[in-house]
Amino acid sequence: MDVLCLDLEGVLIPEIWPAVAERTQIAELRKTTRDIPVYDELMQMRLAVLAANDLPLTLIQQVIDTLDPLPGAAAFLDWARERYQVMIISDTFYQFAMPLMAKLGYPALLCHKLVVENDRIVGYRIRQPDPKRRSVQAFKSLRYRVLAAGDSYNDVTMLEEADAGFLFRAPDNVRAEFPQYPHAVEYADLQRLLEAAS
Amino acid sequence: MDVLCLDLEGVLIPEIWPAVAERTQIAELRKTTRDIPVYDELMQMRLAVLAANDLPLTLIQQVIDTLDPLPGAAAFLDWARERYQVMIISDTFYQFAMPLMAKLGYPALLCHKLVVENDRIVGYRIRQPDPKRRSVQAFKSLRYRVLAAGDSYNDVTMLEEADAGFLFRAPDNVRAEFPQYPHAVEYADLQRLLEAAS
Repeated sequence: MDVLCLDLEGVLIPEIWPAVAERTQIAELRKTTRDIPVYDELMQMRLAVLAANDLPLTLIQQVIDTLDPLPGAAAFLDWARERYQVMIISDTFYQFAMPLMAKLGYPALLCHKLVVENDRIVGYRIRQPDPKRRSVQAFKSLRYRVLAAGDSYNDVTMLEEADAGFLFRAPDNVRAEFPQYPHAVEYADLQRLLEAAS
Repeated sequence: MDVLCLDLEGVLIPEIWPAVAERTQIAELRKTTRDIPVYDELMQMRLAVLAANDLPLTLIQQVIDTLDPLPGAAAFLDWARERYQVMIISDTFYQFAMPLMAKLGYPALLCHKLVVENDRIVGYRIRQPDPKRRSVQAFKSLRYRVLAAGDSYNDVTMLEEADAGFLFRAPDNVRAEFPQYPHAVEYADLQRLLEAAS
């Protein structure tokens, strides 16, 4: 019985911020960790844009409520939960992700918190430095073998620390930079990679 | 968003071994960690009894298949998973517990493995020394506040390490020995204790 650490956005659910960009028609909000690898830089830009446009948290939550898990994600997750102890390791925030967790049957989620005042996002609290690597280390400290899959730059320390790491639907630049991690496009491919590594 | 560590047997599902005792009519198998606090002593006794009676794993699994979560446990767990990141921390074994996890919607489970040969349980592999305390420490290392609830001696190091620990349906001897942990009998009581500690 291994622990399987999965990234959330891009792996099980759509990216949240591009959906917000679509709704608000603010192009800068389309950027993700795929575009700006330094997470704090990306988030500070997002918060500045939200403030400049006076966008409330509830508006973003309304956008999120319209999102569904990616096609096939729920079935993949059901498959995974019968075989592994699944932990979702994400750089999203509980205020964003919990409604989507409901749609996925509440897998365990380790992520961050937004600081909210009067329905405005005024900051965010990263749990700790290098949270994805630290999460894998925590499960290794419990003597688990850890498998991991993610799609972007912020997943790399998690893949590096895991006993076996995989890229899933990663963009070309991430794949080119980290060719050591096998890449899967379909959930069936990821299942095969995980089975071979178990 | 806190992590909630829950014991399994006696808290969410019935004790497994007493159910096996009932089916096989072997009185020694009725004993639990409530009776013999030293877990290895208890397990070695159980394995010796299984061997002496040539009882196969599949027979025990058939008994387990007839078990259901305790009345109210599924609703309590649903409530908990909306509010906490729930981790089941148990001294049971994956070969026993996974069918019951299916009935509970596959919450994350950290437990142990049996060593099985030709359908006979020939040993067991504890993940690490003091596994319940170590589990709480792992989540604290990820900067989570940890709440915990259990019913017996083997839960005490988990309660001790947690930021807030509770006994649930604990027998009188455990309650008397550890009066520092508030005790709940009904899930609604446990919910109130958890809410007050969150």
